[in-house]
Amino acid sequence: MELWYTEKQTKDVGITCKVKQTLHVEKSKFQDIALIDTEQYGRMLVLDGTVQTTIEDEFVYHEMITHVPLFSHPDPRKVVVVGGGDGGAIREILKHPGVEKAYLVEIDDRVVEVSKRFLPEISVALNDKRAEVRIEDGIKFIKENRNQFDVIIVDSTDPVGPAVGLFVKDFYQSIFDSLKEDGIFVAQTESPFYNKDLISRVYRDISSIFPVTKLYVCSIPTYPSGYWAFTMGSKKFNPLEIPEGRIKDLGTKYYNADVHKAAFVLPNFVKQLLE
Amino acid sequence: MELWYTEKQTKDVGITCKVKQTLHVEKSKFQDIALIDTEQYGRMLVLDGTVQTTIEDEFVYHEMITHVPLFSHPDPRKVVVVGGGDGGAIREILKHPGVEKAYLVEIDDRVVEVSKRFLPEISVALNDKRAEVRIEDGIKFIKENRNQFDVIIVDSTDPVGPAVGLFVKDFYQSIFDSLKEDGIFVAQTESPFYNKDLISRVYRDISSIFPVTKLYVCSIPTYPSGYWAFTMGSKKFNPLEIPEGRIKDLGTKYYNADVHKAAFVLPNFVKQLLE
Repeated sequence: MELWYTEKQTKDVGITCKVKQTLHVEKSKFQDIALIDTEQYGRMLVLDGTVQTTIEDEFVYHEMITHVPLFSHPDPRKVVVVGGGDGGAIREILKHPGVEKAYLVEIDDRVVEVSKRFLPEISVALNDKRAEVRIEDGIKFIKENRNQFDVIIVDSTDPVGPAVGLFVKDFYQSIFDSLKEDGIFVAQTESPFYNKDLISRVYRDISSIFPVTKLYVCSIPTYPSGYWAFTMGSKKFNPLEIPEGRIKDLGTKYYNADVHKAAFVLPNFVKQLLE
Repeated sequence: MELWYTEKQTKDVGITCKVKQTLHVEKSKFQDIALIDTEQYGRMLVLDGTVQTTIEDEFVYHEMITHVPLFSHPDPRKVVVVGGGDGGAIREILKHPGVEKAYLVEIDDRVVEVSKRFLPEISVALNDKRAEVRIEDGIKFIKENRNQFDVIIVDSTDPVGPAVGLFVKDFYQSIFDSLKEDGIFVAQTESPFYNKDLISRVYRDISSIFPVTKLYVCSIPTYPSGYWAFTMGSKKFNPLEIPEGRIKDLGTKYYNADVHKAAFVLPNFVKQLLE
C-alpha cells in the first residue's frame, strides 16, 4: 500500500507527499496535530491539515525568520517568539551569543510536547537555560509586557483558527508597545503568489505603526507556492544599513550576509503589493 | 466530478492542481503532449507528465531565462533559443529593441503548434518578423553554426527523454563554439533542492569550458520545489558588472535591475553545490 499525504494549499492546488508512517495524531484544545514521516522531507508537523515544518527544509524558514531581524539589531538580548511551538526559531535565536533570554510564547502546549518527542533536531534548544517556554496566549503576553524586548518574532500558523488575532493592526500596535525604543519585529506573512491581499493589508498596517517597514522573501519547498514572505517592522534600525562585519557565520545552511540583503530585493509583482 | 492533475515531481513528492477541462492530448513523435485548463494556474502545457508552463506563473521563468543574459551583454543582436517551443522566451527576447534575429530551434513541431493554438499569450511573438522557428535538433543546429550568436538560451525539458543531450559537456562545448567571441549562454538547470547532483555536474562542466560561470535562482510555484536554477556560461562579460542604466524597464512582472543582481546571491547550501 502506498500512503500519500495531500495538503490543499489553496482550494485549487496542493502538495502531495509519500508517507512512510504516521507517527502521531491528536486533537488538542486548539487544533488537530499530526506528525508524519515522509520519504522526501522526513518527519513533518501538520497542524489543522497544514504543513508547519519538516526535517529537510525547516532550516530555510527558521534561519530567515530569526537571523534577519537579530542581525539587523546591534545588540539583541531579550527576544520573544510568539507561536513557533516546534522550537526551531528558538534554536536559531540562541546561536546568537549575546541573547540573554528567549521566550517562546505558545498557546498550545501539545505542539511543544509533540515537537520535543518527535522533532528533537528542531526542538533541541527548548531546554536551554536561556529559553523560557510559556504556555499562554501570545496576544495577552505581548499586551502585558511594555517596553521590554529587543526583537519579537511572530512565528504563527496561517491566519485562520487560533492565529487570526496575530494578523491584525491592534496586535501590531501591542508589539510596537512591547518593544524597546529601538526594537524590531518580524512576522511570517504567507505567499506572495497566493496571499496577495493579506500581504498588502499587513504591510499597510505595519507601515502605519512602525517607522521602518520592509518585506523580505525566501524559498521554502513545502510551503504554498514555495515562495514565502516575512514582514518586518522596526522602530529605528534599517535592516539594509548594518555595519560591515556584524553578520557572523553561525553555521547556517541558507542565511548569509549576502542573502540578508538579497532577501529584501523584490520582483515587480511583489513590489506592487506594497504600493 | 472533481478532476485533479497530479505530477510526481520526484518519486516521493508532487503537485496537484484542480482541472477545469482537458483541452488537448496527443502523442507526438517525441513525447506526450497535454494541454489542460487548471483553476489555479490557468492553461498549462504538460510534456511527458511534467508541467512546462502555465499562464499564471510563466512570466517568472521566461523573464529570468532571457533578460538576465540579454542585459548581461552590451549589444545582443542574434539570439538562439534551443527548445522553448511554447514561445515564451522568444516573446521576452523580442522586447529588446536591439535584437535583430531570434531563432527558436525546437525539435518537436507539435509543441509549437499546440502552443500557438492554446497559449496565444505565450506564443504571441512566434510570428514576429525577427523570429525564425526552425523545427530541428538543437544539438545539430548549434554544431553547424560556429561563431554566430550573441546569446544562446537552452530552454529544455528535464534531463530525460529528448533533452538528455542538452545536459552534457559536449553540447556545452558546441555552444561555446557557436557563440561569438563575447557570447553568453544560459541553460535551465532544475531545482537546487531536488537536483543537487545535476547542478554540481553541469556547473563543473560549464566552468571547464567558459571563463565566467554563474548560477542564478528564482521562484516558480509550478516547478518542483518552487525554487529554480539557471546556469550561465559567458566568454567575456560578467553578469554582475554591467553599467548603471543598461537595464531598461521592459514591463516585466518579476525581473528588474535589483532582481538581476540578487538572483546570483546564493544560500549556503546552494553555494556548496558549486564547490
